Amino acid sequence: MIIAELHTPCALVDLDRLEANAVAMAERAHRLGVRLRPHVKTHKCIEAARIQTAGHFGGITVSTLAEARGFAHAGFRDITYAVPIAPQKLADVVAIGSLIDRLAVLVDHVTTIQAIEETASSHSITLPVWLKLDCGLNRAGVDPASDHAIALAARLARTEHIDFQGALTHAGQSYTARSREQAAEIACDEVSATRSFVNRAAKDGIVVPEISIGSTPTMTAAENLDGVDEIRPGNYLFFDEFQAAIGSCVIADVALSVLATVVSAFPEKRRAVIDAGALALSKDPGPIHVDPHCGFGRIVAVEDQHALPGLRLTSISQEHGVLEGPGTAALRPGTRIRILPNHSCLAAACFESLVAVREVAVVDEWRPIRGW
Amino acid sequence: MIIAELHTPCALVDLDRLEANAVAMAERAHRLGVRLRPHVKTHKCIEAARIQTAGHFGGITVSTLAEARGFAHAGFRDITYAVPIAPQKLADVVAIGSLIDRLAVLVDHVTTIQAIEETASSHSITLPVWLKLDCGLNRAGVDPASDHAIALAARLARTEHIDFQGALTHAGQSYTARSREQAAEIACDEVSATRSFVNRAAKDGIVVPEISIGSTPTMTAAENLDGVDEIRPGNYLFFDEFQAAIGSCVIADVALSVLATVVSAFPEKRRAVIDAGALALSKDPGPIHVDPHCGFGRIVAVEDQHALPGLRLTSISQEHGVLEGPGTAALRPGTRIRILPNHSCLAAACFESLVAVREVAVVDEWRPIRGW
Repeated sequence: MIIAELHTPCALVDLDRLEANAVAMAERAHRLGVRLRPHVKTHKCIEAARIQTAGHFGGITVSTLAEARGFAHAGFRDITYAVPIAPQKLADVVAIGSLIDRLAVLVDHVTTIQAIEETASSHSITLPVWLKLDCGLNRAGVDPASDHAIALAARLARTEHIDFQGALTHAGQSYTARSREQAAEIACDEVSATRSFVNRAAKDGIVVPEISIGSTPTMTAAENLDGVDEIRPGNYLFFDEFQAAIGSCVIADVALSVLATVVSAFPEKRRAVIDAGALALSKDPGPIHVDPHCGFGRIVAVEDQHALPGLRLTSISQEHGVLEGPGTAALRPGTRIRILPNHSCLAAACFESLVAVREVAVVDEWRPIRGW
Repeated sequence: MIIAELHTPCALVDLDRLEANAVAMAERAHRLGVRLRPHVKTHKCIEAARIQTAGHFGGITVSTLAEARGFAHAGFRDITYAVPIAPQKLADVVAIGSLIDRLAVLVDHVTTIQAIEETASSHSITLPVWLKLDCGLNRAGVDPASDHAIALAARLARTEHIDFQGALTHAGQSYTARSREQAAEIACDEVSATRSFVNRAAKDGIVVPEISIGSTPTMTAAENLDGVDEIRPGNYLFFDEFQAAIGSCVIADVALSVLATVVSAFPEKRRAVIDAGALALSKDPGPIHVDPHCGFGRIVAVEDQHALPGLRLTSISQEHGVLEGPGTAALRPGTRIRILPNHSCLAAACFESLVAVREVAVVDEWRPIRGW
C-alpha cells in the first residue's frame, strides 16, 4: 500500500526520520555519559519505544498507568510513571509493578508519601519513589532550594518500604525558549539547582541516589550533564513545528505528519478547507511566542514533504481546517497535503493507529496505548 | 458504583441535565415548526442520540463517516454527513448509504459534483446532496449572494443521479457572539441570506427543496424560523463553559464534566496540580472573547457540582492541569474535583467511554464512535 491509498485524516510516521532522531539522541546520551530513559507519551507505541531504547538499558518513562500496563505487558521491565502519583492509583501501581522489575513513582507531598508507606507496608513490599523537584516550571514538584524539599528527601531515604530513587525534574520552561542557546542555559540551571539540592541533602546525611532530568529542548541543546544519571526526553522521536521553531531540530527532522484531503476550495478567496481539524491535530496553538502567525501546523507535500509555500492553516474546528494564502490556487477537492503538527504528542494521541511509512510506502501500523 | 469509585481522569454525563437539554431543544423545534436533526458529533454515542431524537423524525447529523457507519449499524436510517464530501470518500458513502434510507452529503465545488455524478451513475443509484452555503463563517460553502451558488444549485437540481436536498448552512460565526441577543441576530441573518438565495434560484426556475440551518448559539436564541425546514444543533445536549459564557445556557445546564484528582498541592503558592490535562480536556482556549481569564474550564464540586470559588485552571499540558487561586488551600493529593470543559465536543472525544450518572450514582457507560 502507498500513502495515496490511505483514508484521511491519518497520522503518518516517517520511519527514516524517526530512526535518525532515535540514533541522534541515543548517541548524545552515550556521549554525555547519561542513561536514556525516553518518555513514550509522545507516541504511546510499543514499536517506537523498542526503536528508541535500542542500545540503552531499556528503561522508559510513561505519562499514564494505561501506558505503564501496556508497556509492562509488552516486555518493558523498568518504567517510571512521571506524573505525581494520586493516592487512589497506588493499588494499580502495586499490581503493574508486580509484573516487572521496577515501576517507579513520583511524589512531592507528604500526604502521598504517607499513602505509599501504608500501601507498601500492607503489601509487605518496597516501592521505588522519586522526589519531584520544580526547577522553574511552576507545575508539580517542590522547590529544590527549600528546607521542605530536604525534609521530604529525608523521609523518603529513611522509610522502610520506600526505595528512594533520587531527585527528578522536568524543565518544561524550556518550551518558552526562543533558541537552542536559551534551552542550553535552562538545562544548566536545572542541573545546577538539582545538584545543589543533592549536596545540601548530603550535608544533612541524606543520600539522594540519582538525578533524573529531561525535556526535548534541553536534551537536544545541553553539552554538559555532569552529575546527572538519567535523561527523559520524549518529543525528540517525532519532533514537531514547535521544536523546530525553538531550535531543537530542523523541519526536515519532523517525523510525524497528518495526511489530509482538501474538501472545499475557493481560490478567488485564497481559501480552502481540509478534513483535518481539532480532533486530528489538537488545538495546540504552537510556537506563538516566536511566530504569532504560525497557525496550526506546517503544510508540506504528500510525496517528499517539501514545504508548500503560500499556505497557512489559520483556523481549525472539530473536523475542518481552514487553509489560507496564495498557495490555495493549486488546491481542488481531493488534493492531498500533509501537515507537520504544532505538537506531535497531542496530535499522535488523536489517532487509533499511526501509519509507519518509508517515503510513500506504508510499512506498518502502530496502535498507541490511549486512555488512562 | 458511585462517582467516588471511578478512576480519573474520567468523563461524566449528568443524565438529568442531558435529558432536560434534549427536551428543551425538542420542544423549541416543535414550537418553531422545524424538524430537529441533531448533530451527534458532540457525543458520538448511540444512547445520547436516541435520547435527543425522541419525539422527532429520527434523523441525525454526523461529522465523520465512522459516525455515519456506526449510527447506521445502530438503526439510524436518515443521516446527513455535514462536512463537504471528499471525492475519495464517495465509495464509503455509497456503501454506508446502501444500509439505510438516506445518507446525504454536502458539496460546494463543481469538482465534487462531477465526482458524485460519476460515482452515482456507475452504481446506477441516486445520491442525496445538499448545497453548502457560507453565511458568514468563512469556512466551507459558497456565497449565497453569488451567481456561482445559483449555478451549482442549477446543476444539482438537474442532474439525473443527484437528489437535490436543498441549501444547508452552519452559522458558526455565532460562536463570536457575546450574548443571546447577538446570536439571535446572527440566526436572523442566516435565515434571511438563505431564503434570499432560494428566492433568487426560484426566479431562475430552480427549485431548492429545503433549508437546513443550525448551531447551538443560534438555535437556543432564535424565535422565528419561518421558511426553515430543519435545524442541526449539537452542542446543546451537553453545553459547556463556552456556551454559558455567550448566553446559550446557564452553568447549571452543563451536562458534561471531567472528574479529576489532585496529585500535587502547594497551598503556600496558591497552586495545585490535577491529573486532567490536554488529553482529557482538549486545548480549546474557551470564551476568551468575553472572559480573557477563563482558563481551561470551570471547577465544581464532585457531589452536587456547586461552583468551587477561588480556583482557576490556568494551564494544561499533556497529563497535568495547574489550578491556581486561594481555593487551592482546601486541596490535598487525592482530593477530587469536576471540571466543566470549555468545549464539550472536543473534551468528550478524548475519552474511550463516557460515564452516565444520576447525581453521584453511575448508571451506564457509553462508547463514542471515535476516529474517521
